[in-house]
Amino acid sequence: MAEPIVPSPSCPVPLRDQGRVLLAHGGGGRLMHELLESVFFAALRGSATAPAHDSSVHALPGGARIAFTTDSYVVHPRRFPGGDIGSLAVHGTVNDLAMSGARPLWLSAGFVLEEGLEIAELREHVQSMRDAAAAAGVAIVTGDTKVVERGKGDGLYVNTAGIGLVPDGVTIAPDRIRAGDAVLVSGDLGRHGIAILAVREGLAFETTIESDSAAVHGLVATLLDAGIRVHCLRDLTRGGLASASNELAAASGLAIELVEGSIPIAEPVRAACELLGLDPLYVACEGRFAAFVHPADAERAVALLRADPLGAGAAQIGHVAADGPARVTLHSRLGSTRVVDMLSGEQLPRIC
Amino acid sequence: MAEPIVPSPSCPVPLRDQGRVLLAHGGGGRLMHELLESVFFAALRGSATAPAHDSSVHALPGGARIAFTTDSYVVHPRRFPGGDIGSLAVHGTVNDLAMSGARPLWLSAGFVLEEGLEIAELREHVQSMRDAAAAAGVAIVTGDTKVVERGKGDGLYVNTAGIGLVPDGVTIAPDRIRAGDAVLVSGDLGRHGIAILAVREGLAFETTIESDSAAVHGLVATLLDAGIRVHCLRDLTRGGLASASNELAAASGLAIELVEGSIPIAEPVRAACELLGLDPLYVACEGRFAAFVHPADAERAVALLRADPLGAGAAQIGHVAADGPARVTLHSRLGSTRVVDMLSGEQLPRIC
Repeated sequence: MAEPIVPSPSCPVPLRDQGRVLLAHGGGGRLMHELLESVFFAALRGSATAPAHDSSVHALPGGARIAFTTDSYVVHPRRFPGGDIGSLAVHGTVNDLAMSGARPLWLSAGFVLEEGLEIAELREHVQSMRDAAAAAGVAIVTGDTKVVERGKGDGLYVNTAGIGLVPDGVTIAPDRIRAGDAVLVSGDLGRHGIAILAVREGLAFETTIESDSAAVHGLVATLLDAGIRVHCLRDLTRGGLASASNELAAASGLAIELVEGSIPIAEPVRAACELLGLDPLYVACEGRFAAFVHPADAERAVALLRADPLGAGAAQIGHVAADGPARVTLHSRLGSTRVVDMLSGEQLPRIC
Repeated sequence: MAEPIVPSPSCPVPLRDQGRVLLAHGGGGRLMHELLESVFFAALRGSATAPAHDSSVHALPGGARIAFTTDSYVVHPRRFPGGDIGSLAVHGTVNDLAMSGARPLWLSAGFVLEEGLEIAELREHVQSMRDAAAAAGVAIVTGDTKVVERGKGDGLYVNTAGIGLVPDGVTIAPDRIRAGDAVLVSGDLGRHGIAILAVREGLAFETTIESDSAAVHGLVATLLDAGIRVHCLRDLTRGGLASASNELAAASGLAIELVEGSIPIAEPVRAACELLGLDPLYVACEGRFAAFVHPADAERAVALLRADPLGAGAAQIGHVAADGPARVTLHSRLGSTRVVDMLSGEQLPRIC
């Protein structure tokens, strides 16, 4: 996802004392937010319309509103069960647009190629982008290619930016979250991160875990078209559900309460996480989102999502509390309650 | 510049026989066009609105038309006389939008950071982006940061995408070029490429040659506001004037005739090119463009450009011929005429 601007959670290590970029700065956790806050937002807030969401929304003469977003993709390995860097670069940016309720229309594609990359592989990824774009109904309309010397890249990095059209009357943003809102997820969590990790580490599980990488704008349109009062959406990429809900708790100033037993996680993913010592709440998805909806619409929204294969695993997993500090708590299967914090740094580098 | 889709010039080396990406594929010359044609356009043309210019233009409900473009920046070194990767990433994308006659409005910024990059340097480049954006009147509204392992990048790569608003009635594109059009340039050529090369190679010239990196949308607006009949614009980045005019000759199907003695090149740049064995017609600028205008407006257009410090060196350098093959010829100072071809590969790697 493109980074939303949210207040930085307290960071114990002042950035100036670290001095250099760490891998952990890319992980979607607290260190990344600290870097964003300290370097990017501090510099850009003055000159820019402060973005507050996965994509930024702008009005044009004539009344149309567009959403605009960008993501760079450095996923390693570039091929994984369920996708590759090409399809991921389309899905990720389409989904960022969808999180504003926008209908994705146009993508740009920027390639940084490392000298020596096999052209056959490049062609494969570009064709994968084409197929993903065609399936999502978006057009790749402008592009750029740069080549860097051997050893100054890692084969292929892709950037996509995207433009979508926000339907009249639709406003989906963190500041629309209300106490009482139902918190839904569109499907089971953690498949993408585990799929990547399995290939990278050469792990063989009984079942091949495929990435959930997919374009979810159709699911969002289904909710909106049915009149579901969608207050906020957030795709569950780097840092997973835990980071996304922490960002939204901070941005809305509200407490989010999740119920562990209702959070859908497929058994093979759960088993892999146990084996690897990972908490699935922090593992990235690339085709799942959280939806904050009016509580009276929750049941219908889940049913609508489940009617689509992409949303077959949808569930309500919690709600926004009426009061309490802006944080995320989890009611465990055993009846205890714990705070779900952001990770400090990197759980899985180069997951997207 | 973002790559326009133009017919590929004949390429003597079939891409499939090379098999791997070469540095020369990034150079703005024939090899780059061959790669674009063979890999990117071949795959994307089917699903996409064929782009035909530095930015692609799209109509929205309500009548507004937007231009959309992207560029990745891998310039080495990241700091050079007259700018840095931050200002360049703003100027380059603003200029791509301006080449459609658009008023640039919003930029995205995607960063690929290499583990170990000094945060102080990152901050410097981000602040440079901010300053360049503020000066150009555009807002950086969405962003993304990824971190790759040490040795898998080169400190910092930046991608910017941009959206601009195309004024009513303005259509600027290669297929608007007409026989008889005057060919102008907005200033002297080659400063950016020579400035980069001087730093990279540790060359000391008598005069420090500063990059021409600048946002030129104000110059374009000046022409349009004055009613100059602007048919086509093209910024003179990778591959310089020679590549840009070859692309436009191919795209328009018309012959372009240039007059060597009228092409403005500053004496220090000319001297550096001679020393280095470079043809200044192929050296990149980052703040200059070619304008194809109605011949009756040429003189006034040059005067309007020259009235702005950014266009002080503007000149008419040729015209579009009434007939002849789609190629570029240069009438030399000595009275001879030669064809100006595209370079095959890379003249200066990582110039932008």
